[in-house]
Amino acid sequence: MKPLPATERGRRTRAAIVAAAAELMHQHGLAGVSMDGVLAASGAGKSQLYHYFDSRRDLAVAVLHHQFERVMAAQPALRDPACDGLEVWRDQVLTTLLEHGYAMCPLGAFVGQVDDEPELSTTLAELFDRWQAALAEMVDRARGHGRVRQDVDPGDAGRMLLAALEGGTMLAHVHRQATPLRQSLDAAIALLTTGRAAG
Amino acid sequence: MKPLPATERGRRTRAAIVAAAAELMHQHGLAGVSMDGVLAASGAGKSQLYHYFDSRRDLAVAVLHHQFERVMAAQPALRDPACDGLEVWRDQVLTTLLEHGYAMCPLGAFVGQVDDEPELSTTLAELFDRWQAALAEMVDRARGHGRVRQDVDPGDAGRMLLAALEGGTMLAHVHRQATPLRQSLDAAIALLTTGRAAG
Repeated sequence: MKPLPATERGRRTRAAIVAAAAELMHQHGLAGVSMDGVLAASGAGKSQLYHYFDSRRDLAVAVLHHQFERVMAAQPALRDPACDGLEVWRDQVLTTLLEHGYAMCPLGAFVGQVDDEPELSTTLAELFDRWQAALAEMVDRARGHGRVRQDVDPGDAGRMLLAALEGGTMLAHVHRQATPLRQSLDAAIALLTTGRAAG
Repeated sequence: MKPLPATERGRRTRAAIVAAAAELMHQHGLAGVSMDGVLAASGAGKSQLYHYFDSRRDLAVAVLHHQFERVMAAQPALRDPACDGLEVWRDQVLTTLLEHGYAMCPLGAFVGQVDDEPELSTTLAELFDRWQAALAEMVDRARGHGRVRQDVDPGDAGRMLLAALEGGTMLAHVHRQATPLRQSLDAAIALLTTGRAAG
């Protein structure tokens, strides 16, 4: 990947290209989006596009990072030291699902599309690892406040919460209803928590 | 959809076309497979292909049903009246994951690819409903044998197990390891069961 642009204007242009590409790729799949399609959707010039990205793969790596940041921004409880339980996070996940009309997960939607591209596969795995680590930190924090059972391993719990979120989001998308995700997250949280009232 | 062929030979030809199309579509996505590609991969003649399927959409509906039957065949515990616990099913799911090299779920891989095609979306939702119903029946049976808590609702449990399977399979695919799926299924089962030893 090329270094980020030095100027604020350059960073804005690059970010607009990535945001347009992310929306197209989320909707049509990675393989269904060409550089010309991104040009048309972003309003950027061809020389700008190739100034920031050497290839479609380079652009796709940037898109995956962009999707990850969207996921993190929609779950502020993950990084909020004042958030001592898991229920606030669950509510943020469910709110995002409703706001986006039962859309697939911004990262999960790309699983299975990057198998033939090692750089993209590695990037996707790393981003899921970071997401899982953030979940583990949240569980650890909640455990410190006595809201999660002391025998819970935060790493294992982070993995389980992520699987519950991804599977629940997939089925919520299939059925266009929140129930599969809500039940999936509630079940995972019930297994981790001590049964004390949510804050 | 056209009626199934009347002759055994016709059914075999049709099944070979569907199997070839299913493999291509699972690998390259629904949008990435043309009728010509299916012709080349299946070895069928053009007149045969269009004799059995009016359109690519018709063929895709048949592929979804084919994928569902593959899923059911890989989880015989779902339909086995002699299977009174959930652990045999979990082991079948994990064995399938390993046998197929951490492949995406045959049905789950298509979620997000059929949003613009109402007939395919409806078919996919119906097949997930049937899968969930089969899981609910298994839970109900296990509850009858005292292996699942009496206060568990089998329908809710089926939905939760399906979400755990789909999310766990997705992350197992991302990381090329069984741990996410095993932990996800174990967690879901732990929540449902009475803690009696597995049979």
